[in-house]
Amino acid sequence: MSVPFINPRDVRFVLHELLGAEELALRPRFAAHDRETFDAAIEVAHDLARDLFLNHNRASDEREPRLVEGRVEIIPEVKAAIDAFSAAGFLAAHMDAEHGGQQMPWLVSVACMAHFQAANVGTIAYPFLTMAAANCLNAFGTPAQKARFMTPMLEGRYYGTMMLTEPQAGSSLSDIATRAELGEDGRYRLTGTKIFISGGDHEMAENIVHLVLARIAGAPAGAKGLSLFAVPRFLVDADGTLGPRNGVVLAGLIHKMGYRGTVSTIIKLGEAAECVGELVGPVHQGLACMFHMMNEARIGVGMGAIMLGYAGYLASLDYARNRSQGRLPQEKDPAKNQTPIIGHADIKRMLLAQKSYVEGAFALGLYCARLVDDKATAPEEQGRREAALLLDILTPIVKAWPSDWCLEANRLAIQIHGGYGYTRDFPVEQHYRDNRLNPIHEGTNGIQALDLLGRKVSMAHGEAFELLLREILVTAMTASLRASLSTLGVALAEAASDLRATTEALHAARDKGEVERFLANAAIYLEMAGHIAIAWMWLKQALLAEEEAADLGLSSSDRAFYAGKLAACRYFFAWELPKTRAQGELLRSLDTSCLLMEDAMF
Amino acid sequence: MSVPFINPRDVRFVLHELLGAEELALRPRFAAHDRETFDAAIEVAHDLARDLFLNHNRASDEREPRLVEGRVEIIPEVKAAIDAFSAAGFLAAHMDAEHGGQQMPWLVSVACMAHFQAANVGTIAYPFLTMAAANCLNAFGTPAQKARFMTPMLEGRYYGTMMLTEPQAGSSLSDIATRAELGEDGRYRLTGTKIFISGGDHEMAENIVHLVLARIAGAPAGAKGLSLFAVPRFLVDADGTLGPRNGVVLAGLIHKMGYRGTVSTIIKLGEAAECVGELVGPVHQGLACMFHMMNEARIGVGMGAIMLGYAGYLASLDYARNRSQGRLPQEKDPAKNQTPIIGHADIKRMLLAQKSYVEGAFALGLYCARLVDDKATAPEEQGRREAALLLDILTPIVKAWPSDWCLEANRLAIQIHGGYGYTRDFPVEQHYRDNRLNPIHEGTNGIQALDLLGRKVSMAHGEAFELLLREILVTAMTASLRASLSTLGVALAEAASDLRATTEALHAARDKGEVERFLANAAIYLEMAGHIAIAWMWLKQALLAEEEAADLGLSSSDRAFYAGKLAACRYFFAWELPKTRAQGELLRSLDTSCLLMEDAMF
Repeated sequence: MSVPFINPRDVRFVLHELLGAEELALRPRFAAHDRETFDAAIEVAHDLARDLFLNHNRASDEREPRLVEGRVEIIPEVKAAIDAFSAAGFLAAHMDAEHGGQQMPWLVSVACMAHFQAANVGTIAYPFLTMAAANCLNAFGTPAQKARFMTPMLEGRYYGTMMLTEPQAGSSLSDIATRAELGEDGRYRLTGTKIFISGGDHEMAENIVHLVLARIAGAPAGAKGLSLFAVPRFLVDADGTLGPRNGVVLAGLIHKMGYRGTVSTIIKLGEAAECVGELVGPVHQGLACMFHMMNEARIGVGMGAIMLGYAGYLASLDYARNRSQGRLPQEKDPAKNQTPIIGHADIKRMLLAQKSYVEGAFALGLYCARLVDDKATAPEEQGRREAALLLDILTPIVKAWPSDWCLEANRLAIQIHGGYGYTRDFPVEQHYRDNRLNPIHEGTNGIQALDLLGRKVSMAHGEAFELLLREILVTAMTASLRASLSTLGVALAEAASDLRATTEALHAARDKGEVERFLANAAIYLEMAGHIAIAWMWLKQALLAEEEAADLGLSSSDRAFYAGKLAACRYFFAWELPKTRAQGELLRSLDTSCLLMEDAMF
Repeated sequence: MSVPFINPRDVRFVLHELLGAEELALRPRFAAHDRETFDAAIEVAHDLARDLFLNHNRASDEREPRLVEGRVEIIPEVKAAIDAFSAAGFLAAHMDAEHGGQQMPWLVSVACMAHFQAANVGTIAYPFLTMAAANCLNAFGTPAQKARFMTPMLEGRYYGTMMLTEPQAGSSLSDIATRAELGEDGRYRLTGTKIFISGGDHEMAENIVHLVLARIAGAPAGAKGLSLFAVPRFLVDADGTLGPRNGVVLAGLIHKMGYRGTVSTIIKLGEAAECVGELVGPVHQGLACMFHMMNEARIGVGMGAIMLGYAGYLASLDYARNRSQGRLPQEKDPAKNQTPIIGHADIKRMLLAQKSYVEGAFALGLYCARLVDDKATAPEEQGRREAALLLDILTPIVKAWPSDWCLEANRLAIQIHGGYGYTRDFPVEQHYRDNRLNPIHEGTNGIQALDLLGRKVSMAHGEAFELLLREILVTAMTASLRASLSTLGVALAEAASDLRATTEALHAARDKGEVERFLANAAIYLEMAGHIAIAWMWLKQALLAEEEAADLGLSSSDRAFYAGKLAACRYFFAWELPKTRAQGELLRSLDTSCLLMEDAMF
């Protein structure tokens, strides 16, 4: 119960020392804020996450949602937590004041959400989805739709979902088959089946508003024929009164390995009763509307992966400090007491690896959240434009890298616990199961890799890529000028130069018309770029930590904290960054092992 | 249900073409056998595994053993499967004819067991433990103990367990605290608590005989004070009649992430009633007796990890062939049908990675099983001695490498299934949970790494290590003389030379008295050595496949099979072996990132 789930010192370091959240308060949109309001929000999030989310994380795994007489039964702690989350103002925190929001920077909102993700990723998914749906309605809904659907969402009365996936259309959204027919009354009727719909049906909210991708009768095939619809569980009158039940019906629950607190459903639209939907945004622009929210959603998935990794790291650190086992190599006397396992080099290796993955990724996740703010509110046009470009190119990385590597952290957290880590008496086995979802949903990591190499790297004539390299090289050069960090600066510059050469070699293949060969090993390209981005984040942290450590008045715990940042940075550069060399070589060789493999040869 | 769980063609390839099982039949011990009896055993194992083990693999996960009125309730399919396994003669297959065995080579026994491990690792664990206990009694028991305990085990009437771990002594066996007092009646009474005891209590057998490590009153501290005891659940008279219940009592069940079909227990010895044990083997030699069986047990754990990886690979291959999704990069027309996902380069990458891990490890696992035979029955003394040395040095590798990398295969198998792979409707999520145990039990992988670098590499003045390098270099040189495989041969020779240089650098540190630094990064040493051992196995397979493929009369499926072996070998050399370069550099730098990290800096 008292196992730590987040490190407030690191939150403070990244939010304020590394990313200068306070600067944002100088911008007109955030004028009501200052460091105090930011810190107060973080503190409320911390305590609420600990008291009402962490408390039932295991329970909602053990007693997953089930179907009782056609209704989804969810343990009551879930709704209690969401209600408290809503009452504390988090649902609308980043929203405009006119919609009842606090105009909190996205950076601070994401940092608050991180606490809930670390404590209970299954329960926070309901508000997460609701906020995403509200954001979408805010961007594309009519004033009437905002009043009828978005406002009750922000008040915590309605929940939202996203309905994209269908049994025959998972990664391939262009194959969505759900149809929408415009009736003579000017309303659309939808028919189709949606699958893997998180929060798709339950009794916790007055209403659930689904945002559904469907194809209007006669629309073109493919992604360009999709439109977005708001489909409420109960129809809503113009004045907000709830009408009859809409024909959006639960067809079954999906039983998952983890993430069990979030109900996953199969939903039928318009099968027994008619299913009425309202068009949101322009006809045939449904995918663009969805993608408008995708950067934020993908950062959200990445942050979920990071916080699961982070919680596992802290749990295994706590365990390693308190569990005695074995003796150090030079101690041969079996009559001596056993040593806390944190003294063993191999345990320290597994802790350092976790620390380097989760704290490196945490910095990247919040860096991207700050880019969301800068894209909207940076004072100069150039700043907004550059933030948008950096955000675009970093989005597939911040979604995919943590969902692979913070899962690896969870694997190590179990290993540190030994046999106990494999039991359901410790939190780490659940983290591992929960986190395994993240490389799959919100675009599989394979899709992210194609997005990065196939689109983002060459978008805007390669400007985003060049900008990212420039940012990385600025950090590398700053470090290389400082004797203590010079080796690391040079190593990062070399890795960035390797990435550039690799990209050029791949583009040369593409330009010769070898499109399949160009994209065949995209997954490794993403991993290489991800490792370099994390190394960059570590060097940024190390530069800062070294400066801060020069302050003679530091407390001993702050001194150890900064020394730890430097040590983890050095670890990542010694143990992880060198992996990119072999990756670069493989990519530049345009290896066709995978591309040319034939079905019958497996 | 029709998802394949093993590849009979590959079993035949490794057993006969690669490892020449038939040769073994020329040895006196195996004179009753020939290729036909071997193949018949494999076929019986295959069908039995499919019909009576695979059939309830999911059920025994969903309905894990539970405590009902103090008794362990296990679904009836488990005992039915074990009874059939026993009736088919597998329990005693490798045993002497005088004990009712068939004197089957260990190699063939392990290949048979592989089928059951692939089909249902939870159920086969009971016979696996029983066979290990029987082997131990066969080696160290008195004739009376063999008659009273071992014979009914081999008949499937009694089950066996191994009781080593205690709450305060997991990896550190020298801290075992269970005590044994010699009474005036010449019998020992044991008191203590054992934990994580697989198969520790249930109602499936007439009796359960536990092999227990305990410390005789007055024995020295540490590992050298441990003795081995046979502790039956029901006392057994001289004539085999069951006597009263012994004081070895279930204190609780452990609830695990996976491997749920195998009941895991906490057991109290001598708490309420007296617990009588019989000494097995010499006083204070308990650990040595246990370790006598350890090579075989560790190969068994490695094989379990391999077969879980293998089953996942085959399931994801089947899925990839039958699931359509998306279109190839050059196909832009969304009106065209979707393509089977096996056509996507990234899916082929994930299949090839799995194939390279599981088939490479499968070859290594059976190679080690053959070493067990050669150690005992090779015609010349030198052959027996060399087999023993190779087996000793490969044992930590064959236990640890597959339990890391075939788990990685399971991770990829889920990813190929997309969202479906995360549900409990497909087998791959269970494989992933089941396999996560293997890096932990039977000596954690950290312990294996210390065993490899700290003991096995330098044992017998480094002779085992030199022998292994020689074997690897012979394969490398053979390949380098063949134009088609020359590059791979050279790459393997370079990697082996890197391993030698790395080992020398580490030994130099040790010889300077830097013992902690020498051992600090042992885990990476094991991974490097493991990757090189698997590359070696792949090159052996590729050499053979190329020869076989020269036969013009091959069927098209055999032709594709051999081409697949060559492709997977090339994949492993292009994608995996290069990882060892950075590992070697890191090790030779005697990096102290982990060793010097301080508790307060985390």
